[in-house]
Amino acid sequence: MNPASFTRRQFCKTTTLAAASLPFFNVPTAKAGQPGKKLGFALVGLGSLSTNQIAPALQTTQYCHLAGIVTGTPAKAVKWKQQYDIPDKNIYNYDTLEQMADNPDIDVVYVVTPNALHAESTIKAAKAGKHVLCEKPMEISVEKCEQMIAACKQAGRQLAIGYRLHFEPNNLECVRLARSKMWGDLKMIDAGFGFPIGDPTQWRLKKSLAGGGCLMDVGIYALQATRYLSGEEPVSVSAISTVTDPVKFKEVEESITWQLEFPSGLLAKCAASYRFPGMEGFTAYAESGWWKLDPAYGYSGISGQRSDGQTIDLGHIDQFAAEMDNFAHCIIANQPTSVSGEEGLRDVKIMMAIYEAARTGKAIDLT
Amino acid sequence: MNPASFTRRQFCKTTTLAAASLPFFNVPTAKAGQPGKKLGFALVGLGSLSTNQIAPALQTTQYCHLAGIVTGTPAKAVKWKQQYDIPDKNIYNYDTLEQMADNPDIDVVYVVTPNALHAESTIKAAKAGKHVLCEKPMEISVEKCEQMIAACKQAGRQLAIGYRLHFEPNNLECVRLARSKMWGDLKMIDAGFGFPIGDPTQWRLKKSLAGGGCLMDVGIYALQATRYLSGEEPVSVSAISTVTDPVKFKEVEESITWQLEFPSGLLAKCAASYRFPGMEGFTAYAESGWWKLDPAYGYSGISGQRSDGQTIDLGHIDQFAAEMDNFAHCIIANQPTSVSGEEGLRDVKIMMAIYEAARTGKAIDLT
Repeated sequence: MNPASFTRRQFCKTTTLAAASLPFFNVPTAKAGQPGKKLGFALVGLGSLSTNQIAPALQTTQYCHLAGIVTGTPAKAVKWKQQYDIPDKNIYNYDTLEQMADNPDIDVVYVVTPNALHAESTIKAAKAGKHVLCEKPMEISVEKCEQMIAACKQAGRQLAIGYRLHFEPNNLECVRLARSKMWGDLKMIDAGFGFPIGDPTQWRLKKSLAGGGCLMDVGIYALQATRYLSGEEPVSVSAISTVTDPVKFKEVEESITWQLEFPSGLLAKCAASYRFPGMEGFTAYAESGWWKLDPAYGYSGISGQRSDGQTIDLGHIDQFAAEMDNFAHCIIANQPTSVSGEEGLRDVKIMMAIYEAARTGKAIDLT
Repeated sequence: MNPASFTRRQFCKTTTLAAASLPFFNVPTAKAGQPGKKLGFALVGLGSLSTNQIAPALQTTQYCHLAGIVTGTPAKAVKWKQQYDIPDKNIYNYDTLEQMADNPDIDVVYVVTPNALHAESTIKAAKAGKHVLCEKPMEISVEKCEQMIAACKQAGRQLAIGYRLHFEPNNLECVRLARSKMWGDLKMIDAGFGFPIGDPTQWRLKKSLAGGGCLMDVGIYALQATRYLSGEEPVSVSAISTVTDPVKFKEVEESITWQLEFPSGLLAKCAASYRFPGMEGFTAYAESGWWKLDPAYGYSGISGQRSDGQTIDLGHIDQFAAEMDNFAHCIIANQPTSVSGEEGLRDVKIMMAIYEAARTGKAIDLT
């Protein structure tokens, strides 16, 4: 609820980001360019995100390396073992995950399963004494998020959520523009993320596994944008969700719009969809100017414009590498992660309120 | 409520627009290129819109000419009389307006006063036997709109609302793209219009004259866009309004967001503001593509993009000339205007529901 809270966060920065571009973040004084031990990461869930993004990123990280895997599919274990030279003792399934307690090779467990399985793996990993990095959305209910936070706290281990855009230079530049107030106070944010979803049998369309539809999967990026751009927490939300293809969208929303009010009087209008392409950015409107990223959320190609005609194009980094290096650095330096379980919980609370608002037709008080 | 109703409207087209670009409109067969009598227009209210846009446009129209004025400011009467060679007998004030009944020079009264004075002048003009073109928003309450419609009906005269964008080629192209379904069904519309308002003493900031703030003045363009792009009437609306400068915005909203649900399941997220620049367009998202105008609503400079990389840039027309020629042509051809009082009333009804939604925090049923 404190508008200035974001600016005071202790962001554990790796050298991946130019500190000069981030005057509002406190950068640790530890020399990030002199890594010692690399932390061992175990990936839980070997779907396309692990396969195509996270494992390749782990080949480029400064502070981490791919040490182990957790999979329920033996054929994947064989393939990954060969491809990444993973010893048998570092290969687990969901039933044996807790045995990691005896394995010093693994420091961090990165949970990349369907949403509704995040808590189970996170809690097992915490009990095994591991730090946990968990993909977004954190979980499918407030209660499960709270259980994850409690488990990690009890184990004395850190819990981070995979908010890769917190480490993405163009998004950070947009945050900097907001904080600088070079065009005055923020007055409105427009943010949306949609794409036409493919395979109708995938887990993202099953409520028991995904917890919801496009809001949980991609709407969370638009919600995050309103929160990190503003540095405020919303006080009220109203929403409308819709399904026009009830065969494909039997269980979850197809499209959704929501609007947020913030303590300063800032408003945000947001949307998410599984039904159409092209909505993948945000625009921030301040008293005398605006700035936007479009696209804003991809693994690469992020760029934007400002009302003064300048472009926002600070180049491309491997966001997964940055996210993992940041978490590893926080663990090594014994500093709290900025993308904490509490941060993940805040989004889940708001998303649950968005669903309640859509269901009831009433604005939901978030204070 | 009929999604196809827009496509069946009898748009009275002037030759200002290329009929070839509008296959979904029925173009009158009357030869528009052979005008006979030009209808005499009297302007009511000689503010900046009349001075800078409408009077100059009347110098270029095919079917109309500036015949008279109605003003409460004698000095303006002197200036306009000289500039446009207006005879004394065609110069009225608000008290003498009804005496137009005896003046055959004046066929149409164009009401360009503050919003809350529209009904009074419209009803007087109708009683004087004149057709009426009235600026948007039609009035500040549903009741006053209904009184205007009834007065014109009783007098057997046409009533049109100044929806100039119904005659603007780039907006019409966007409607055509929606109707063509070349990218499938429309699934979401994003529309907004904001600007930082100047002079704090102007009538637009007084509730008694404006009826509301940015929604009534510029939000109506975003609302209109959702309706003419979709060809549907919304069934539900929720909204949030805000004031961050209570000195300037003592009486009316500073910024507002609203979201609409349509019968097909289409959603729209919209905004208006008197507080920031740069929000002045719309984007339409269909199943496999999108198209946008940015800016969409200005007197000139309207252009946009499509998801296939093509630009939308059908050039510039004088929208006020097109709007007035269209109305004159409808009167001459004895065809109903497409931008009727009923069309104006629909927007006012929805805007009143938007205010009620913002006030109550509840979605308002529009069916």
